[in-house]
Amino acid sequence: DAHKLLVLAGDGIGPEVMREVARIVHWMSAHRGLKLEITEELVGAASLAVHGVPIRDEVVELARQSDAVLFGSVGDPAWSHVGFDKRPEVAILKLRKELELFANLRPAKLFDALIDASALKPEVVRGLDLMIVRETVGGIYFGEPRGVETLPDGSRRGINTEVYTTSEIERVARVAFDLARKRDNRVCSVEKCNVMESGLLWKEVVTDIHKREYPDVQLSHMLADNCAMQLVRDPNQFDVIVTGNLFGDILSDLASMLTGSLGMLPSATLGPVRADGKRNALYEPIHGSAPDIAGKGIANPLAQILSFAMLLRYSLNRGEDADLIETAVSNVLASGLRTGDIMSPGMARVGTEMMGQAVLRE
Amino acid sequence: DAHKLLVLAGDGIGPEVMREVARIVHWMSAHRGLKLEITEELVGAASLAVHGVPIRDEVVELARQSDAVLFGSVGDPAWSHVGFDKRPEVAILKLRKELELFANLRPAKLFDALIDASALKPEVVRGLDLMIVRETVGGIYFGEPRGVETLPDGSRRGINTEVYTTSEIERVARVAFDLARKRDNRVCSVEKCNVMESGLLWKEVVTDIHKREYPDVQLSHMLADNCAMQLVRDPNQFDVIVTGNLFGDILSDLASMLTGSLGMLPSATLGPVRADGKRNALYEPIHGSAPDIAGKGIANPLAQILSFAMLLRYSLNRGEDADLIETAVSNVLASGLRTGDIMSPGMARVGTEMMGQAVLRE
Ligand SMILES: CC(C)[C@H](C(=O)O)[C@@H](O)C(=O)O
Ligand SMILES: CC(C)[C@H](C(=O)O)[C@@H](O)C(=O)O
Repeated sequence: DAHKLLVLAGDGIGPEVMREVARIVHWMSAHRGLKLEITEELVGAASLAVHGVPIRDEVVELARQSDAVLFGSVGDPAWSHVGFDKRPEVAILKLRKELELFANLRPAKLFDALIDASALKPEVVRGLDLMIVRETVGGIYFGEPRGVETLPDGSRRGINTEVYTTSEIERVARVAFDLARKRDNRVCSVEKCNVMESGLLWKEVVTDIHKREYPDVQLSHMLADNCAMQLVRDPNQFDVIVTGNLFGDILSDLASMLTGSLGMLPSATLGPVRADGKRNALYEPIHGSAPDIAGKGIANPLAQILSFAMLLRYSLNRGEDADLIETAVSNVLASGLRTGDIMSPGMARVGTEMMGQAVLRE
Repeated sequence: DAHKLLVLAGDGIGPEVMREVARIVHWMSAHRGLKLEITEELVGAASLAVHGVPIRDEVVELARQSDAVLFGSVGDPAWSHVGFDKRPEVAILKLRKELELFANLRPAKLFDALIDASALKPEVVRGLDLMIVRETVGGIYFGEPRGVETLPDGSRRGINTEVYTTSEIERVARVAFDLARKRDNRVCSVEKCNVMESGLLWKEVVTDIHKREYPDVQLSHMLADNCAMQLVRDPNQFDVIVTGNLFGDILSDLASMLTGSLGMLPSATLGPVRADGKRNALYEPIHGSAPDIAGKGIANPLAQILSFAMLLRYSLNRGEDADLIETAVSNVLASGLRTGDIMSPGMARVGTEMMGQAVLRE
């Protein structure tokens, strides 16, 4: 029986890196018996241009009925003045919210071959392998009231609301604790409880669920400002970090940049376990649409390829195929091929397509 | 006529690093004709222990009537379970709010002698000299409604509100543009306008005031998540960064950690210009109360000492005295003395007091 896969390449470098995944899918169908029923749809600025909305309701429905969604990236400066509801970014925000994709797993893992690409000293970053679990359907991203209002004197006021409920915190904490058990068994929960009551509740609920359900996991707490510092000072102190939507956005981008290989890092966003035992899931690179290099054929396709490998492993239960891809990526790096973003002296610079084909060859 | 100075050492390492400033004040009174009328008061956990509140109203009044406030740091894990209104942190938050200290100037400057203390590669961090201007009386730190409420089903909901008005954004933007003119003439405004309407307003107002009043300054915009990445990837791309309260909290801590010398960095927080032409101002180190090393005599007093130098320069108009202190600090570092936080091989490790005395000797 074929797995239903929805592919949403999106904007900027999205389509060109997705093309390299398509080659791999093609090869796996021919040689590994992978059966996929693939639907492709427009999202982001690409959808705005054709349909006038960043994502159509039909596409959200398709995503809901798929076994997994492979997402590229959205965002386009050309659409930044069009109005808040017509931002390309609405596509990913709506998918997360509508499919209840509440747990965004963002690994920051150093590829040994790429240690020179990091801005950090090798001794600080060597062996880095941490996982940020970011809540993605709550917090200030979605809280009401929100908006810009004009006051009687003509001046304006911008408002957003951070809201977290007990159950929203509990479920993402469980994902983090479960993951930690398969890793180094340590969770660091991050908030700003010295300033925000929502952070205070976050800390209390995480503490509580730890005591009740995960006493075997080591739990620590850290303020978000301190966490940003500690990530630079000594990132290897962390195993799993769990945090809210906004802090997670900032800290996970920071953590992935520490590895020097943003263009290499995949992510998975998971929904609750459904009645049929499966869970909705979306896979996307951590990098954005990178409009500055879009269309030039120089973008690194590896994060998108590795996102597909995660999809095979976690949503389709095809761990061997995922292994094949991950090993191929390692071998290609070991052979010295590099796209511009991870280039270092003595290596061979290649473009998107050559990198994709090299992986395929392996 | 004596300048009125309010000294609030606070918690943790606050009192011990403040002691080293006291020596310098003493010396300057004797040798440089510095006339200070100093009042010392308890704040934070120290005040909670004696008065039952993190800061007394009389102390806020004293601060308002002073020419400047020299602040240490507040925060104490022993008080973290006492209740949200009795956090030691309320002391600094209340001072900022009541005195309208809206612009927190946080330099991240690399001391050349300390380049080895950074986690970043020397070629990435060399010459780093950026300034973060953080808004400090608005945003999610103070917005209403806020709190934790219990729902009918017994579960709870934590709420905080981010609010920014046109005038709050304008005045902090002006501080940033004015500063840029005295530096490299570049301002980068940071928000999260692709997700938050308050960030959208922020961006619009900054763009507007730039066009009207500061067209000669170079202005760019960056999303907060991208800024965190860029600070690690290439911090030298920035001159002045202006941002809101919460992003500023995280990004300025991150930026100062890049220098590897958190224990070295002072900050100033300024209020509006008053009718008498002066402005309320508070000076404090960027580091916190560091309860883990408090009382051991090993804390680095240089950030506190340099905060006092900033105070002399900006609030008391005594630039020469400030120069004296800053040169003394440079010389001490050049001579190889280091506290534990900035220690590197081949240097001489000293404690708080020896470091303070070395500065005094110079
Ligand atoms: C595109 C944007 C809305 C999104 C976010 O802020 O969540 C992105 O930065 C991310 O981290 O996935
Ligand atoms: C102590 C705390 C309330 C404070 C803040 O969050 O503003 C501190 O982190 C700072 O940056 O000055």
